[in-house]
Amino acid sequence: MNMSGRCAACKYLRRRCPSDCILSPYFPSNDPQRFTSVHRIYGACNVAKMLQELLPHLRVEAVETLCYEAQCRIQDPIYGCVGVISQLHQQIQDTECQLAKTCAEIALMNSDGQEPPLAQVDQQI
Amino acid sequence: MNMSGRCAACKYLRRRCPSDCILSPYFPSNDPQRFTSVHRIYGACNVAKMLQELLPHLRVEAVETLCYEAQCRIQDPIYGCVGVISQLHQQIQDTECQLAKTCAEIALMNSDGQEPPLAQVDQQI
Repeated sequence: MNMSGRCAACKYLRRRCPSDCILSPYFPSNDPQRFTSVHRIYGACNVAKMLQELLPHLRVEAVETLCYEAQCRIQDPIYGCVGVISQLHQQIQDTECQLAKTCAEIALMNSDGQEPPLAQVDQQI
Repeated sequence: MNMSGRCAACKYLRRRCPSDCILSPYFPSNDPQRFTSVHRIYGACNVAKMLQELLPHLRVEAVETLCYEAQCRIQDPIYGCVGVISQLHQQIQDTECQLAKTCAEIALMNSDGQEPPLAQVDQQI
């Protein structure tokens, strides 16, 4: 155990940081905010439990995504990162709609040999 | 308090369900899985705390999104719903790329009056 070099989690929780602390590799003491965010949303125990269930080499990614989700939930307490998912779904729908319109323009050009209303297409992009 | 009509949370936690239980409106006893998912990821206390911080009419949406995120994390313990976000980003990139190619086809048709390679465009959609 190491009292002076405790990780951000052990420092926050005012406990000794054992040499095999499961949180220590992912929550360095110089970035306390990173730990307080996940602790506020999931609780340190739940984070530790989720990491325990993963192979060590997969934990760094899991912590990254947990930190991201926690940050989203703090910024948007109603929708969390599901708000981001909704925005992306809308963006996909808009882009697919634009693609369908543009393909329809090409089809029209081919069917009657007319000039396409290009100015309109440009505006929509 | 109501022992027989306890909500899923109070039933799981083997406690009395007070008439003003903050979890009760969102975790009916006939859907215990819904509670166990959020409890496993966030812990009942954290969920209750997050709901306390919201106006009552905003809580139903918050619970929905917390349940969704918890479900994603259980299905994908490494990436959670950030995996969904990554997939959507990829889909947007693909669709935007397809849109740019299709617009380039139109520009080409306009610049030199040639027939567009429509078969190719159709294949890519």
